[in-house]
Amino acid sequence: MIKTQGYAATDANKPLGPFQFERREPREKEVLIEITHCGVCHSDIHQARNEWGKSIFPMVPGHEIIGKVTRVGPNVSKFKAGDLVGVGCLVDSCRSCGSCKEGLEQYCEKGLIGTYNSYEKDGKTPTYGGYSNCIVVHEDFTLKIPENLDPAKAAPLLCAGITTYSPLRHFGVKAGQKVGVMGLGGLGHMGVKLAHAMGAHVVVFTTSPAKVEDAKRLGANEVVISKDAAAMAKHNNTFDFILNTISAPIDINPYLELLKREGTMCVVGVAPTPPTVETAKLIFKRRNLAGSLIGGLPETQEMLDFCGKHNITCDIEVIPIQKINEAYERTIKSDVKYRFVIDMKSLKQDF
Amino acid sequence: MIKTQGYAATDANKPLGPFQFERREPREKEVLIEITHCGVCHSDIHQARNEWGKSIFPMVPGHEIIGKVTRVGPNVSKFKAGDLVGVGCLVDSCRSCGSCKEGLEQYCEKGLIGTYNSYEKDGKTPTYGGYSNCIVVHEDFTLKIPENLDPAKAAPLLCAGITTYSPLRHFGVKAGQKVGVMGLGGLGHMGVKLAHAMGAHVVVFTTSPAKVEDAKRLGANEVVISKDAAAMAKHNNTFDFILNTISAPIDINPYLELLKREGTMCVVGVAPTPPTVETAKLIFKRRNLAGSLIGGLPETQEMLDFCGKHNITCDIEVIPIQKINEAYERTIKSDVKYRFVIDMKSLKQDF
Repeated sequence: MIKTQGYAATDANKPLGPFQFERREPREKEVLIEITHCGVCHSDIHQARNEWGKSIFPMVPGHEIIGKVTRVGPNVSKFKAGDLVGVGCLVDSCRSCGSCKEGLEQYCEKGLIGTYNSYEKDGKTPTYGGYSNCIVVHEDFTLKIPENLDPAKAAPLLCAGITTYSPLRHFGVKAGQKVGVMGLGGLGHMGVKLAHAMGAHVVVFTTSPAKVEDAKRLGANEVVISKDAAAMAKHNNTFDFILNTISAPIDINPYLELLKREGTMCVVGVAPTPPTVETAKLIFKRRNLAGSLIGGLPETQEMLDFCGKHNITCDIEVIPIQKINEAYERTIKSDVKYRFVIDMKSLKQDF
Repeated sequence: MIKTQGYAATDANKPLGPFQFERREPREKEVLIEITHCGVCHSDIHQARNEWGKSIFPMVPGHEIIGKVTRVGPNVSKFKAGDLVGVGCLVDSCRSCGSCKEGLEQYCEKGLIGTYNSYEKDGKTPTYGGYSNCIVVHEDFTLKIPENLDPAKAAPLLCAGITTYSPLRHFGVKAGQKVGVMGLGGLGHMGVKLAHAMGAHVVVFTTSPAKVEDAKRLGANEVVISKDAAAMAKHNNTFDFILNTISAPIDINPYLELLKREGTMCVVGVAPTPPTVETAKLIFKRRNLAGSLIGGLPETQEMLDFCGKHNITCDIEVIPIQKINEAYERTIKSDVKYRFVIDMKSLKQDF
């Protein structure tokens, strides 16, 4: 077994703190990764605080993992020691259902195995995530990180990047199309960069005039202050696709009206209360309201390669792990541009 | 001008009664149709009673029109006297927008011209519908009715038929797919017949055990009593497509759960209160919630030809026009299998 250091939540009401545990030795096709960086996703907070009601404690959060391979199992063929790699939201799946066979492991019909707050296939060994100094993962769930990308800035691609890339691709966003991005947080800012790189005309919707300049810097062609009903209505019936990254409870109906005939709004964040949908807005223009969940392994690799080619990374604020609880509070207040990333070297101060 | 007899609502609170008015002589490319039958659509009632707030009185409802061409304008090329024809929900559109050019006149970007309760392109001449002995319509908005179909039973194809055919086609329903039909009224019973003829495995959802046998007779392979949560849950994650014809306020979320990954629920009836949508149900299986509105002229003709080939018509109850107000009350109570159709010969008793 491999002695491992990390940060864990020991129950829903306590701050995260230093935690020692063990990882298994890499098996046949597994790689041991020394984690250098891990992004802080809002879902880490929901789960560490048991807001979704399915938390397993102690919990080591983190599913935006970047590191170096340090050792490989005897039958690993895709990686070698020294490779720059990433691990995202899932570390295994059934591998035999229709979705897994299509490379859509995120929709595994038997249930995916999350990078943390999940159980291994034995049904009893908890998975521990990336707020730690190493992780052991099957090579099929390990991703190659393009060497031209800054490892710290690449970390949030593993969740925020793929969560926005997958729906843009699945719903066929193409050069010249008009694409809306609702919300400019961790997900939204990646949606803007990716849609821009795909050649779309990108319009950001935000409640905050303070974000206008930043949205444009990130790649938005236009920014609409969503509280301004007249500014919104000017765009009625013009969008091919709208990516809804807002998980706050909002009225989505004025946005549905912005879609062209057959346009799609895709939701990637779960609001605490389900929105009401004026179905007439769907009927009279044959519009779609859809959802999308992260991405499968092949598409996550495709996204990383796309980001390598276009030199796309996340805008981040690097923190030592000792600041994680403060970072959680700031994330809740949207006081971060646009993702916290933990520099894992900082762990040494605690052990 | 052509003296015309019909039945009209003179205001929202009065029953329909005999009404005389004038139709224009057929212009260059218009046909004069002697109406033999007209179906009674629930939207006739909503509009005659001004429940949608946009009613023009006096109103002659009716947009499921069947008749014989009796005279044609000098430049009509598609029809001749004696032809069996139909007119559906629209009698004109801008003909120049993108949707019109694609033959999707129902989504005309400048607004379609309804068969009744609408204004002609002059913006002031009201359109009068099919509860009358004749109508004058441009040949491009006139449809050929296959001669093997019973004209009375074919009438509701012009609205109930195309409203269900179009989404089945647009969302790619194919032989072997599993298709759900929510509700077994005028729309639902056509959805069952059409999906069955397309080779789908059809499952009807109804609250009423009394409808089980009839649903099977119409072509359903299975019937699920939607109040039975366990019977519903057995079908979780198995449907390619669900056609939602229910305009009563219901919880659609248990139905969303029935869809496969990437499955679509298409709504064709507007509920009085907008449903809430648990977006997690969309996200975790990349499902779609969409809407669809009647159909364009090319697709309506395609539907009629499909019905001719498969010998599909509606299950109807024929009434004389003098029973129209009673038929409205029965329609509201869902006490009709499955559509009332007016035999227009009966008009003569009043004039």
